Amino acid sequence: MAKTIRLLWGSGSPPCWRVMIALEEKNIREYDKKLLSFDKKEHKAKETLDINPRGELPAFRHGDNVVNESIAACLYLESQFKSNGPSLIPESAEEQALMYQRSIEILNVQQKTVDVLTYNERVPEAERHDSAVKREREALSTELKLWESYMHKVGPYMAGKSFSLADVVVFPTIALTFRLGLSHEKYPKLAKYYNLMKERPSVKATWPPHWLENPKGSDVFKDL
Amino acid sequence: MAKTIRLLWGSGSPPCWRVMIALEEKNIREYDKKLLSFDKKEHKAKETLDINPRGELPAFRHGDNVVNESIAACLYLESQFKSNGPSLIPESAEEQALMYQRSIEILNVQQKTVDVLTYNERVPEAERHDSAVKREREALSTELKLWESYMHKVGPYMAGKSFSLADVVVFPTIALTFRLGLSHEKYPKLAKYYNLMKERPSVKATWPPHWLENPKGSDVFKDL
Repeated sequence: MAKTIRLLWGSGSPPCWRVMIALEEKNIREYDKKLLSFDKKEHKAKETLDINPRGELPAFRHGDNVVNESIAACLYLESQFKSNGPSLIPESAEEQALMYQRSIEILNVQQKTVDVLTYNERVPEAERHDSAVKREREALSTELKLWESYMHKVGPYMAGKSFSLADVVVFPTIALTFRLGLSHEKYPKLAKYYNLMKERPSVKATWPPHWLENPKGSDVFKDL
Repeated sequence: MAKTIRLLWGSGSPPCWRVMIALEEKNIREYDKKLLSFDKKEHKAKETLDINPRGELPAFRHGDNVVNESIAACLYLESQFKSNGPSLIPESAEEQALMYQRSIEILNVQQKTVDVLTYNERVPEAERHDSAVKREREALSTELKLWESYMHKVGPYMAGKSFSLADVVVFPTIALTFRLGLSHEKYPKLAKYYNLMKERPSVKATWPPHWLENPKGSDVFKDL
């Protein structure tokens, strides 16, 4: 490879995980990657800010080309390394439509998950309301039920019969909801999708290290 | 065209406008489009829900392929109609990186704009705090200053020398901020970009009809 790839990442972050799966799928394994700690606020240090002015992870660079938005990085990698590994863009217009749709639409799940998980850190104490917490949890539950309904109509992959960029982008967000205790019984189609995807070599090779160390997650999403 | 295109849209909505600019750029002008009224809640009626289960606009269909997320629809249209009009994907890896990055990153401006504009409708009266309103306006101001800084380093288009999908996606969101009174003096590079883009034929042809009727917007973003 002519251009150096550098990735700063955090364990368990769906946006970071997306980029790592995309790199695996494109058979790019020898690159400069560095695991940073969110707890130690390493993502706010100069090293990250030099690549990502938002002080967020991933911070991703290919040569001088910086692509920090994870979905953008996946699209860029597919475009730059088309012939490496499987094509992540389906051939049929039908699957292509669904692939683009779900790849962007997943940001709804991501946003609502972050809303629920970061409430106390986002909202100053004097502005906190139990009613707001409840509403945000309900919004996430409604959102996840919509995705469960999608998987009743399509499968086994997110955009249909073939693995695609939609799986690279969507899976890490879905995996996080199960890590946080989402019920396999209440969301059987999403659980089936999760079980299929977690066996994929690119997913196994990039499984968050702190999930491996501590396979038991939490139960904060149990009642959703 | 073999497949029928149907678009339900609302005037002044950046996501709808994106899709309309993309269709113009791809020389697709004869399609079934219907203007709906947000004020009359027409986007919550069956006609929309049949295409977009979220009850949001745009609702976009190409044959049986539904792509409601506006950025997804732009990517899909470029992919399906590659040879129509100019390519919206830059040739150089450098501009391509920036094109993908900005096309997704603009969702930060979009989200923060919506946060500010919908506060009263989103937050029940008993949960409202002036401090939260102030914080959300500051977050939007910080975001817009970041984009102003981007345009000091690149131009005249969002991803560099050539018009690209990033302009199709980013421009409507930037145009809305100026419509709402953003200062041309405080954001000179964004204003320059706005003035360049508003003369583009695809943008002129799709200018929001209620902005044409009432060219004076508001001043809610004046102090940002």
